Amino acid sequence: MRPYQEAAVAAARRHRAAHGSAILEEFSDFLALPNVSSDLTDVRRVADHIVSMLERRRVTARLLEHPEAAPIVTGTITGAGERQTIGIYAHYDGQPVDPTVWTTPPFVPTLLDHGEQIPIPPAGDPIDEEWRMRARSAADDKTPILALVTALDALHAAGMEPAVDLVLLFEGEEEIGSPHLASSLRQHRGSFAADLWLICDGPVHQSGRPQIIFGVRGIAEMEITVYGPARGLHSGHYGNWAPNPASRLATLLASMKDDSGRVLVDGFFDDVVAPTPAELEAIGAIPPYEEDLLDELAIGAPEGSGESLIERMYLPSLNVRGLSAGGVGDLAANVVPDSGTASIDVRLPAGHDGDAMLDHIEAHIRAQGFHVVSEPASHAVRRAHNKVALVKRRSSYPGLRLPVDHPAGTAVLAAAAAAGASDVVAMPTLGGSVPIAHFAEHLGSPTVIAPMANHDNNQHDADENLRIGNLWYGIDLMAALLTMDTEALR
Amino acid sequence: MRPYQEAAVAAARRHRAAHGSAILEEFSDFLALPNVSSDLTDVRRVADHIVSMLERRRVTARLLEHPEAAPIVTGTITGAGERQTIGIYAHYDGQPVDPTVWTTPPFVPTLLDHGEQIPIPPAGDPIDEEWRMRARSAADDKTPILALVTALDALHAAGMEPAVDLVLLFEGEEEIGSPHLASSLRQHRGSFAADLWLICDGPVHQSGRPQIIFGVRGIAEMEITVYGPARGLHSGHYGNWAPNPASRLATLLASMKDDSGRVLVDGFFDDVVAPTPAELEAIGAIPPYEEDLLDELAIGAPEGSGESLIERMYLPSLNVRGLSAGGVGDLAANVVPDSGTASIDVRLPAGHDGDAMLDHIEAHIRAQGFHVVSEPASHAVRRAHNKVALVKRRSSYPGLRLPVDHPAGTAVLAAAAAAGASDVVAMPTLGGSVPIAHFAEHLGSPTVIAPMANHDNNQHDADENLRIGNLWYGIDLMAALLTMDTEALR
Repeated sequence: MRPYQEAAVAAARRHRAAHGSAILEEFSDFLALPNVSSDLTDVRRVADHIVSMLERRRVTARLLEHPEAAPIVTGTITGAGERQTIGIYAHYDGQPVDPTVWTTPPFVPTLLDHGEQIPIPPAGDPIDEEWRMRARSAADDKTPILALVTALDALHAAGMEPAVDLVLLFEGEEEIGSPHLASSLRQHRGSFAADLWLICDGPVHQSGRPQIIFGVRGIAEMEITVYGPARGLHSGHYGNWAPNPASRLATLLASMKDDSGRVLVDGFFDDVVAPTPAELEAIGAIPPYEEDLLDELAIGAPEGSGESLIERMYLPSLNVRGLSAGGVGDLAANVVPDSGTASIDVRLPAGHDGDAMLDHIEAHIRAQGFHVVSEPASHAVRRAHNKVALVKRRSSYPGLRLPVDHPAGTAVLAAAAAAGASDVVAMPTLGGSVPIAHFAEHLGSPTVIAPMANHDNNQHDADENLRIGNLWYGIDLMAALLTMDTEALR
Repeated sequence: MRPYQEAAVAAARRHRAAHGSAILEEFSDFLALPNVSSDLTDVRRVADHIVSMLERRRVTARLLEHPEAAPIVTGTITGAGERQTIGIYAHYDGQPVDPTVWTTPPFVPTLLDHGEQIPIPPAGDPIDEEWRMRARSAADDKTPILALVTALDALHAAGMEPAVDLVLLFEGEEEIGSPHLASSLRQHRGSFAADLWLICDGPVHQSGRPQIIFGVRGIAEMEITVYGPARGLHSGHYGNWAPNPASRLATLLASMKDDSGRVLVDGFFDDVVAPTPAELEAIGAIPPYEEDLLDELAIGAPEGSGESLIERMYLPSLNVRGLSAGGVGDLAANVVPDSGTASIDVRLPAGHDGDAMLDHIEAHIRAQGFHVVSEPASHAVRRAHNKVALVKRRSSYPGLRLPVDHPAGTAVLAAAAAAGASDVVAMPTLGGSVPIAHFAEHLGSPTVIAPMANHDNNQHDADENLRIGNLWYGIDLMAALLTMDTEALR
């Protein structure tokens, strides 16, 4: 470990041991600000609050305003001489909340000791790493912002300084798909130039070990509506005469995927890039946890032919995320429904083009005999064709993988090792999607993901929470990143 | 035509020509009484109202009470000497209403002249057969009750009498599946004994011609839930590793039915009884209307291999009436859903046993590799089996077909011909289900369906309505039935 980085992590630990209560108070004040993405008044208030948090640490901060969208909070820390620049990304907006299903209100931050509500202890009293802070965005994704300013406090208290220049980008639209992120990066390309971008979002490894993630899958979406009769028909008078759109939709979906989960769409796997030897080595070092996951999730057997979860993430996925036709349960009525709809998301490993993948699926639908339309079909079109499908599609953004042996990644892994209590997992790719390809495309920067939150944080759901030990890790990680070895980045 | 029957129909026509406004007023008062099956207070008030309608015509009427269910209104008309007895069935309860989607409130009966609201005209003013009366149960199924009492008025005014004994059964639970009908028939077998039962419900032929229906399909139901992971999972992190229950459900449903609508379940067609020569002759006489129906319903091609709609009704159907998994449209979230559910109804032509048919489907599900459970599967069961399906089933009642050349049917066809303005359609079977098998099973009576309502009556839906010409036909039909030739029934 580099001595300066070692001293910085030690300073972070001393600081949080001495000021744990004050850190939790500042976290609680920050979490008490409602931040649902769709409420511009709320998210602007959060942005102003972050600016004041940064200015208290003498960070030059400002807002990049957009008339109809949440501002980007940006800031810089610049030292003397020519130094490498690291970009830090996090987002301050949160998922919608349904207060009726939360145990405590989502914007009344609540400290929990094994589920029991407790007050934030007085200064100097011990704080248990297993406590949780429950609030919307406690895990996703206000944590890195608090961790950063706290690490700055710790360095300052120890008379230390960051060893890198920093550029900050805190976004307020992540939970609604980052509609302005790409254009902001393009427009402010100069301000956001960095030798490395760190995306601080998401959870650490399911095993509890720190992880650094070198890639993501992109995402594209398709919604398919298969038409039946012009109106729902009495299933007695017309059943087995009027074509049933639910059956036809089922047959179409069945033609797309076999029972083992193998996608049967022509061209779907043409662009798969297999793991490199370095990636295979990283995969081999990932701690085993799949049996536990199968137990936890009550899964008899995973899809595929014996590949591991991470190996499956090297393949594009075709996931039926929703099905709807007529009614089930108490809503079941004896009708031939007028239509059936399936909603699909397609995850795109690095190298896959979303539009091309959606083209493959649309060609498959046509090959099953459907007349495909992109706007709701008229009565005449439905009458003229035996099988008609409405296809709506959206390709959001591509995937990306940085080689796990890239020097920038190696330096970040070293920082995580300096901060972490256990071995760091080098994860070649997430299965999930984060728009990090924008950073590569518009800034040309290598980009990795450095998460902090516990994996069981109820992200996006009711009772979202952060484990206090993960907040401590986040502070230590920030201290290590601010003092990282940047020689490798040159 | 028999002279007495001819005189009776003429009397009915004279009566409704002279008293049309008063008939519409009585209809309107009757329709103004809310009658949603689930509201026992409301339906009991309707039952009392019917008793008073009958007593005004000197019909001996009473209620067969049930402590927790709507009463049956029963009544008898008995003449001198030994005469044949005809049973008349109708139901006075109605489907639920959603007033927000009705153009006028469902229990404010509204007379319409081509869609324009008009008042009931003063006595003596002309009444157009194309007018409609809009209200819940205007068509389904208060009409026959009003038609009967009006026919009695007409006979009385002409100094005539019914030529048959009558037993009436007006039910208040039809729209919730007639849960007490079979036990009531069994319990009051003696009171309900009749040489012929007429089920007065449903619409006339789509061509507008009167029809008499000789059979129905029975019904059985199944709901299939295919399990995925124990909770909805992030489709990025777990998509194409965690088994997708929506895809598996689609594959299961696709295995049940091919693209032409042919059911692929073993044993499904073992008990099919083909049309008899007499039925084939009746089928040949049904006016052509399928092209119109395809146009109206925007159907490119019906299921099957070129059979007519009525021929398809000789086959059991497997109709997917509902599909549900995850969300679609604005509710689509990027998850692998925890389960997917399909709701199925199976229509049973005469001779098919509902339980046996559901057994065939359940065996098919097992043959596709599913572990089938009848109660929600435990975590352990889901973990232990790769594919698990929860199957809930209900066999409601069987189908029935009276031979179209049965003497009772011939007599009813003659009555409809006497009342009708055009040729009567002898329909060998409905595709739909009405529990008329109960009358055959418990009373041993031949049973036919004698409908009155226009086919475009919005039955079960918002803006239900009766065409006034169909009310007139109903009155004439009742007059003809009350004076029918019963020699054939002996």
